[in-house]
Amino acid sequence: MKKVAVVMGSKSDMPVAQKAIDMLEKFGVDYEVRVLSAHRTPDEARELAQRKDIAVFIGIAGMAAHLAGAIAANTTSPVIGVPVNSGQIGGMDALLSTVMMPPGMPVATVGIDAGKNAGILAAQILATSDEELMKRIAMFRLEEKEKVLAQDSEVK
Amino acid sequence: MKKVAVVMGSKSDMPVAQKAIDMLEKFGVDYEVRVLSAHRTPDEARELAQRKDIAVFIGIAGMAAHLAGAIAANTTSPVIGVPVNSGQIGGMDALLSTVMMPPGMPVATVGIDAGKNAGILAAQILATSDEELMKRIAMFRLEEKEKVLAQDSEVK
Amino acid sequence: MKKVAVVMGSKSDMPVAQKAIDMLEKFGVDYEVRVLSAHRTPDEARELAQRKDIAVFIGIAGMAAHLAGAIAANTTSPVIGVPVNSGQIGGMDALLSTVMMPPGMPVATVGIDAGKNAGILAAQILATSDEELMKRIAMFRLEEKEKVLAQDSEVK
Amino acid sequence: MKKVAVVMGSKSDMPVAQKAIDMLEKFGVDYEVRVLSAHRTPDEARELAQRKDIAVFIGIAGMAAHLAGAIAANTTSPVIGVPVNSGQIGGMDALLSTVMMPPGMPVATVGIDAGKNAGILAAQILATSDEELMKRIAMFRLEEKEKVLAQDSEVK
Amino acid sequence: MKKVAVVMGSKSDMPVAQKAIDMLEKFGVDYEVRVLSAHRTPDEARELAQRKDIAVFIGIAGMAAHLAGAIAANTTSPVIGVPVNSGQIGGMDALLSTVMMPPGMPVATVGIDAGKNAGILAAQILATSDEELMKRIAMFRLEEKEKVLAQDSEVK
Amino acid sequence: MKKVAVVMGSKSDMPVAQKAIDMLEKFGVDYEVRVLSAHRTPDEARELAQRKDIAVFIGIAGMAAHLAGAIAANTTSPVIGVPVNSGQIGGMDALLSTVMMPPGMPVATVGIDAGKNAGILAAQILATSDEELMKRIAMFRLEEKEKVLAQDSEVK
Amino acid sequence: MKKVAVVMGSKSDMPVAQKAIDMLEKFGVDYEVRVLSAHRTPDEARELAQRKDIAVFIGIAGMAAHLAGAIAANTTSPVIGVPVNSGQIGGMDALLSTVMMPPGMPVATVGIDAGKNAGILAAQILATSDEELMKRIAMFRLEEKEKVLAQDSEVK
Amino acid sequence: MKKVAVVMGSKSDMPVAQKAIDMLEKFGVDYEVRVLSAHRTPDEARELAQRKDIAVFIGIAGMAAHLAGAIAANTTSPVIGVPVNSGQIGGMDALLSTVMMPPGMPVATVGIDAGKNAGILAAQILATSDEELMKRIAMFRLEEKEKVLAQDSEVK
Repeated sequence: MKKVAVVMGSKSDMPVAQKAIDMLEKFGVDYEVRVLSAHRTPDEARELAQRKDIAVFIGIAGMAAHLAGAIAANTTSPVIGVPVNSGQIGGMDALLSTVMMPPGMPVATVGIDAGKNAGILAAQILATSDEELMKRIAMFRLEEKEKVLAQDSEVK
Repeated sequence: MKKVAVVMGSKSDMPVAQKAIDMLEKFGVDYEVRVLSAHRTPDEARELAQRKDIAVFIGIAGMAAHLAGAIAANTTSPVIGVPVNSGQIGGMDALLSTVMMPPGMPVATVGIDAGKNAGILAAQILATSDEELMKRIAMFRLEEKEKVLAQDSEVK
Repeated sequence: MKKVAVVMGSKSDMPVAQKAIDMLEKFGVDYEVRVLSAHRTPDEARELAQRKDIAVFIGIAGMAAHLAGAIAANTTSPVIGVPVNSGQIGGMDALLSTVMMPPGMPVATVGIDAGKNAGILAAQILATSDEELMKRIAMFRLEEKEKVLAQDSEVK
Repeated sequence: MKKVAVVMGSKSDMPVAQKAIDMLEKFGVDYEVRVLSAHRTPDEARELAQRKDIAVFIGIAGMAAHLAGAIAANTTSPVIGVPVNSGQIGGMDALLSTVMMPPGMPVATVGIDAGKNAGILAAQILATSDEELMKRIAMFRLEEKEKVLAQDSEVK
Repeated sequence: MKKVAVVMGSKSDMPVAQKAIDMLEKFGVDYEVRVLSAHRTPDEARELAQRKDIAVFIGIAGMAAHLAGAIAANTTSPVIGVPVNSGQIGGMDALLSTVMMPPGMPVATVGIDAGKNAGILAAQILATSDEELMKRIAMFRLEEKEKVLAQDSEVK
Repeated sequence: MKKVAVVMGSKSDMPVAQKAIDMLEKFGVDYEVRVLSAHRTPDEARELAQRKDIAVFIGIAGMAAHLAGAIAANTTSPVIGVPVNSGQIGGMDALLSTVMMPPGMPVATVGIDAGKNAGILAAQILATSDEELMKRIAMFRLEEKEKVLAQDSEVK
Repeated sequence: MKKVAVVMGSKSDMPVAQKAIDMLEKFGVDYEVRVLSAHRTPDEARELAQRKDIAVFIGIAGMAAHLAGAIAANTTSPVIGVPVNSGQIGGMDALLSTVMMPPGMPVATVGIDAGKNAGILAAQILATSDEELMKRIAMFRLEEKEKVLAQDSEVK
Repeated sequence: MKKVAVVMGSKSDMPVAQKAIDMLEKFGVDYEVRVLSAHRTPDEARELAQRKDIAVFIGIAGMAAHLAGAIAANTTSPVIGVPVNSGQIGGMDALLSTVMMPPGMPVATVGIDAGKNAGILAAQILATSDEELMKRIAMFRLEEKEKVLAQDSEVK
């Protein structure tokens, strides 16, 4: 089965990564978790990006967040970028560094610290060729809807 | 074969949409172009989002850009969002309106006016289950690389 | 009597909603409180927007805040939008997502987290055809003025 | 019949004001156009704000845009604010100066340069007690929808 | 002797106002402290602005900070504006609302929450015709310099 | 008579400086125009700042605009700062570099490119001890008011 | 003699690169000009970064500008980053992507489009061990100063 | 041996300065720590900048951070600027005040509060003519890489 790589730039990004992992677990998607830095371990990041058994990459990084872009430069598989708020400027640095990729080299960017959405998006991408997985995602959506409707009943 | 829907909020977004279309053409990906507004034609947008023959959506919109999000709310297929710079604030309004989606509802956001990257990303998503397509993307990457190397030779 | 719908995207927006409710209570305006999400419960949000017994809507949401716009798309009644600060970027994401609506589809936006002003504005709108209500608003204004003058006396 | 006052801070704001006027004309709403400055003609602005024959105010101004707020301070009628982009900072100065009003004193803010939406919102407010007007707004919405659908047919 | 009016929009701005007051006390400048709101007590604010015994005004306010501008509209005396950080957007709303005044109506703006600099600036303005006061300011500068040099000695 | 120094960081700032000069001419205030750079001619800038015949300084500069602050560091006279928009970031760089001065060292900042307001503010400062000048400023205000009222008559 | 590599992400950055080259020419510093992309030619960029005959790198790139950082990841020589304004958001994307590097991996960032300053900084770095070069820089500074003084004479 | 001057604008910047000092200690680079203000002690700052025994300056300051620029104005040695986050606006004021230097006067800017990167950059600059030092920096890089790889092993 196809695999998702959840890569973070530093172990301090784990709380954001965990939200992605929780979703992949929930959807029964195979995954691998890594800590690799675009700047401190560029060779290891490149090697990972070139692995053929990974179908979708999730790159999680803060500040001048080059991780997702550095992975994208070494693969043709879809790369999801999660900008992390490292304290200053509310994560705008990471958001712009992740999303404003040059023409020809997309990174599928989700919101600041949005690990959960990254995990769901990875599953949605794999589900384009996996009907079973797509059903699990649809089920999850219903659960999410039910939660809102329960809150609605409560306040009404 | 799976289809990509290229949806723009107004015909004025056509220059950005065209860049996505050019990429889909280049990769031989089947697509459909639409003008639908999250606000002025919400029912038609919802109907499109619920169609089962579309594997990936590209939502292209400016200002308080709700189009990609409104599509995402009605499908479990991956939705790519392209924020369009409508003149004021350099497109920051559309970028934040597209990327900062609530937990549970991802939009795969590319850069401001980045229609080309949206087209490539849509192809990359479909290519996770289409080796032939993945090869065409890899070929495109080589062409892009050759263009840079040609520029490099020129300036050296 | 005409009714105001106070709709929030998630129960976590309740502190902001409560400030609007307090004002509606104070002015004796009939209201209904709901939790509905533009993305997770789009159908329920649309149904509410189409109800004929509601004269003014207040949509309260954070991040890529589409709620007020999604209501506006399904009603011709005035819609007030309250952008909520969800922690990152100080609420700029919600402000721009709420206020920068496309031509033809206004959302009457108040400040970030400004539930109180949303409640007052809803009352002011209803008071354009309700002199009794307008008098209560004028009275409230005098009270507000007195509070400032009391503070002024204190520091002088 | 109730009247809308379209007030701009300087004649240079006329292009934005005209878009509001066009909508009011279209909906058959009575209106009055004025040039008054919160700073250069504070007394005249206050006098206008205190007039009893005006049901809705539209304040149009750029830079540190105090006009809508200065009107709001002298009336209990709803005040719509249109921030104008005066060239620098893309209109962010006017947007924040208009929308971030203190608790107790709402200004119903529309997007930067969004004169059209201000005109529509003024009509929507009056239409809360005028069924005939509400029908004209609903008709306008249908026209707007038809325009999008026509564009959609064209590109399909 | 000429007087400085220290006006804040709400008693919650007192910590910032106190820093201005401390400087005026230190320099022996006569002053008066007031709480007046451009929006809730516009008439009282105007009356104060028109008083002839006040030579310099300091307007301290947050959010869409119109206070200094509203004073400036009613006096030809110099008006100093202190934008206050009210929590959201780090005070950028108040800064732009205070400093971006229209041509013809200056507000001498100091930094966000910079009550101390407002007090010093008021004194500097009065000192343009008061040599004794100018000497006290020069003395204060020397003290400030000594503090830095003491810190310098400490770390060397 | 007391003098105002109009100092710009580069001759390219002349259009902004001219607006200040025009106001000083109009009010009959004595002035001196200089081109001096905080970075390229720090000694000359310091010498000018230390001159005793100058009562008010106007520092006009773009980018990391240190000019007004560098003058302030060498005088106890009031220093007015005019941030200039040098093309990128709409002048936000110059605005923040000018207004966010450290505690103890105020710069009286006016809006971006607001040379006119700088000239008026300089005159207002001198007018705190010059009744004749204050009358000329009051006269100017009336003219400004008349211009708005003329525009108002025109559109009514 | 030690060499400076002037690397740009695309030939469209040439106008900015040329300003750096002009300075290096002026100071008689040996240099090499390259077009290499962190994303499209990552291997070639890495190879260049690992060359031992280059003492200082200048990386010039726009948008999510990873070029300088990607070079820094593969060398211990100083890397200067020049963020380029690619049209949207005034270059803030490139500035933050270049300057907000993670701890341990500095990029010496100059202003947006500031090719000239990058060239001078490269020379200043080499001049820390080259007195002759330092003299040429000091001479250049005198010329720059003379230009300002000439402008000053002109306006006085 | 060549010396680095670590200059901060106020003792409150010590936590940021300490991170630079720690790196200089680690690399065995000679340094001197100072507290000097561009505004409160301009003469002392200029004197330091003119000292011939200092090869690289590090200027650490917040708000309208002129310190690094003021040093640069008085030396031809490389000057590194560290913008400090003083609480408001997340340090954007200091970042723009430090990096957007006028043409001809570079400041090598690192990230907000990035004292560590400033220390490393200073060492990298000195290492352009000191092979021993360059080796120590390369060693440090390996350690940094090992730390990431250790985190990677842990999460795998």
